[in-house]
Amino acid sequence: MSRVLIIGAGGVSGVVVAKCCQNPEVFEEICIASRTKSKCDDMKERFGGGKTKITTAQLDADNVEEIVALINDYKPEMVINVALPYQDLTIMDACLETGVHYLDTANYEPPEVPKFEYKWQWAYREKFEKAGLTAILGCGFDPGVTGVFSAYALKHYFDEIHYIDILDANGGDHGYPFATNFNPEINIREITSNGRYWQEGEWVETEPLEIKRVFDFDQVGEKDAYLLYHEELESLAMNMPGIKRIRFFMTFSQKYITHLNVLQNVGMTSIEPIEIEGKMIQPIHFLKAVLPDPASLGPRTVGKTNIGCIYQGVKDGKPVSYYVYNVCDHQACYKEVGSQAISYTTGVPAMIGAKMLIEGKWKKPGVYNVEEFDPDPFMEELNKQGLPWHENFNPTLVD
Amino acid sequence: MSRVLIIGAGGVSGVVVAKCCQNPEVFEEICIASRTKSKCDDMKERFGGGKTKITTAQLDADNVEEIVALINDYKPEMVINVALPYQDLTIMDACLETGVHYLDTANYEPPEVPKFEYKWQWAYREKFEKAGLTAILGCGFDPGVTGVFSAYALKHYFDEIHYIDILDANGGDHGYPFATNFNPEINIREITSNGRYWQEGEWVETEPLEIKRVFDFDQVGEKDAYLLYHEELESLAMNMPGIKRIRFFMTFSQKYITHLNVLQNVGMTSIEPIEIEGKMIQPIHFLKAVLPDPASLGPRTVGKTNIGCIYQGVKDGKPVSYYVYNVCDHQACYKEVGSQAISYTTGVPAMIGAKMLIEGKWKKPGVYNVEEFDPDPFMEELNKQGLPWHENFNPTLVD
Repeated sequence: MSRVLIIGAGGVSGVVVAKCCQNPEVFEEICIASRTKSKCDDMKERFGGGKTKITTAQLDADNVEEIVALINDYKPEMVINVALPYQDLTIMDACLETGVHYLDTANYEPPEVPKFEYKWQWAYREKFEKAGLTAILGCGFDPGVTGVFSAYALKHYFDEIHYIDILDANGGDHGYPFATNFNPEINIREITSNGRYWQEGEWVETEPLEIKRVFDFDQVGEKDAYLLYHEELESLAMNMPGIKRIRFFMTFSQKYITHLNVLQNVGMTSIEPIEIEGKMIQPIHFLKAVLPDPASLGPRTVGKTNIGCIYQGVKDGKPVSYYVYNVCDHQACYKEVGSQAISYTTGVPAMIGAKMLIEGKWKKPGVYNVEEFDPDPFMEELNKQGLPWHENFNPTLVD
Repeated sequence: MSRVLIIGAGGVSGVVVAKCCQNPEVFEEICIASRTKSKCDDMKERFGGGKTKITTAQLDADNVEEIVALINDYKPEMVINVALPYQDLTIMDACLETGVHYLDTANYEPPEVPKFEYKWQWAYREKFEKAGLTAILGCGFDPGVTGVFSAYALKHYFDEIHYIDILDANGGDHGYPFATNFNPEINIREITSNGRYWQEGEWVETEPLEIKRVFDFDQVGEKDAYLLYHEELESLAMNMPGIKRIRFFMTFSQKYITHLNVLQNVGMTSIEPIEIEGKMIQPIHFLKAVLPDPASLGPRTVGKTNIGCIYQGVKDGKPVSYYVYNVCDHQACYKEVGSQAISYTTGVPAMIGAKMLIEGKWKKPGVYNVEEFDPDPFMEELNKQGLPWHENFNPTLVD
C-alpha cells in the first residue's frame, strides 16, 4: 500500500491529483495540503470518488515543524512538492527529519533573489544518502522530461552527445490581446534577463532575447524561438559526458514581447508603490488586477505545445542527429483534467516520477536530477499517461 | 490704455502671459484668472516685474455669473480664453453680457461628448454682431495660424486654392520610452478615432490611422504622418472658395502608437473602475499617476516642431504650389518662456490675435474664424513674436 503527501494546491497540483487518481493501483491514498485548505477540498471534490482515497490538510510549507507534524501524522511514503520553489528546502528538511522520499518540479529559489541554481538542493546529497532516502529534483517537463529524453537518447542512440538544443514552443491562443499564464513578474524576468548557454566547458552570456531562431514546430507551426537560460542546462552540462554545447529556446510572439516591453517601459511592472487617491499601490498589483485572471484562460485556450530536444553526436564513429518531442493540446488537457497544457505537461511527469519512486524503479539514496535515472520505464509511462513522444532521426537542426 | 483678462492658468496661458509682457505697449494691464489662484500668482511671479501690470483672480469659468462679476470689476477690453474647451460658451455668454471682446484657441466641446464642431459657437454670430463685439475663434497654431496661412496664400498667390494639406510634425524627444504631453485620454482618442477629410463637397471617413504618408519635414526629418480629423477643416471647408480637398496629417512614431495600443489592449486606458485593495480606481487614473508628469517634460524635451500647409491651385490660369510653415525649437521655447514648443506655438498666436483685436486690425462685430480676417498684419507679427515662417514654391506634394 502506498500513501503520498502532495504539497501545493495550484494548477500543477490539480493535474498531479487528477493523474494520481487515474493510477489508483500505485496511489492508493493521497493527502493534499496547502495554506488554503479550501483549495485542497475543491480538488478532492473535483477528482475524488474513485479508488484513490483523498484527504486534505491545512499546511504552511514555510514552516518545517508544521510539515514534520503533518508527515508524522499522515505517514506518507513520499512527498510530491508542487508548492512554491521558495519552499523546496523546508520540505526537504522535513522529509529528512521524518524519513520520507522527496520529489519536486522546480529548483529551490531564495525569495527575492531568484538564481535558477541547484546548489542549495545539491548540498543535501550527503544527508539524503546517509538517510537512505531518494530526492528527485526538477521532475516536470522542462526541467524533467527534457532530462529523461537526454538520458534515453544517450542510452539508445549515441556513444556521445555533443550538442543539445531544447525547444519549448507554446502555440496556445487564449484570444485576449494580452494575458499571462502566471505571475507577470516571472514572465517579464524571462524576457528581460540575459540569456545563457553552455559551450566548451563554460557559460556564454547573451543580451536579453539576443539570439532568435525561427523554427517550424510539428503541429504548432513556425515560431520565433529565443535563447534563454533554463535550469536544466546546469544539471545536463554536468551529467552528459562529452557535451560541447547545450542551449534552451522558448517561443514568444512579437506581440507578447511588445506588450511586456511597453508595460515595463511605462512602469506598470514596477513593485515600487505609487500614491493614488491616498493609497500606496504597487503598479504590478494594479496590472494583475486589470489583466485577465490566469485561471480564466484554461477554458478558452486553443492550440498546442511542442516541447522536445534535438541531439547531435556520434554512434559507432558516425554522426547522428535525433529529435524527440511531445505535442500537447490545450483543449484536450482541459477536457481531461480541467487545466491547459502548461500545467498538464508539468503535472503528469511529476506523477510519473512519483510512480517510478514508489515502484522502486527510481529509488537510490541521494539527491538526483532525472537524467541520472534509467529513462526507459519513464519513457514508457509518458506514452501511457497522456504525453506520447515522437522521434525524428533526420531533424532540421537549429543553427 | 488696454486691459486684458486672461482666463486659464495652464501651459498655454503661461506662454500668453509671457508674450503679453513682452508687448507692454499693447498689453498695459492683464489679469490672470483661474480656479486655482496660486497658479495665477506663480505666473505673476515668473513673468511680472516689467511694464505690464499683472493682477490675479480666483475664478470658476463654468459659472457665468462669476465671470460677469470679475469682468465688471476688472473692466477689460477683451477676454483671452485659454481655459478648458468646455468653458467656451460660459465665457462667451459673460462677454456678451458685459460687452467685451472674446478670443479662444480651441472650439467648444460639450463635456463627455467631444465633437470638434464649431456649431455651438457659430450660433453666437448674430448676438455678437448685434452687440458690436468681436469673437475670434481658434486662434492657436492649428487651428489658428493654419487659417491665417490659408488666407495669406489665397490673398497673395492664388486665384483659387483647390487642395490644402495641413502637416503637423512634432520631432520632440523627451527621452522617456513613453509619456504624453497632455491628457492620455485625448491622445488615445486621437489615434483611435476615425480619420475624416473634406473632398468634393463632402466628408470622407477613414479607419483610425488608415491613411499614412511619409514626409520629410524641414529641420525635423522624415516622419510617419497620419490623416486625422482636426477642427480647422470645418471652417476652412466653408471659408475657402473653390476648395476641392482639405486634409490634416499629424506625425506619430510607431513607438508612440505601439505604446498607446498596448495600454488600451490591457485595459489601462479604461475609465471603468476596478477594485484594488478595497478601493475602486479607474485604470486611466492609475496610468496617469505612473506616467511622467507632463509638466516635467518641458526642461528635457529636445528637437523641433514643424507645422504648415501645402496649397495647390491656380493663379492667372497657371497651376501653383505653395508651402508655408513654421519650425519651432522645444529648448529655445523653454529657455524663453519656460514651456516647450507645443504650448508655445499655441500661446503666441493667441497673444497676436489679441494684439490684432486691440489694435483694431481684426475688429469686426460677429463671431469669426481667423481665416476671415486680413492675414498680413498677423503674418508680420509671427515673424516678430517668435514664430517665423518659411515659404517654398516648389514643395514635395503629399500624394
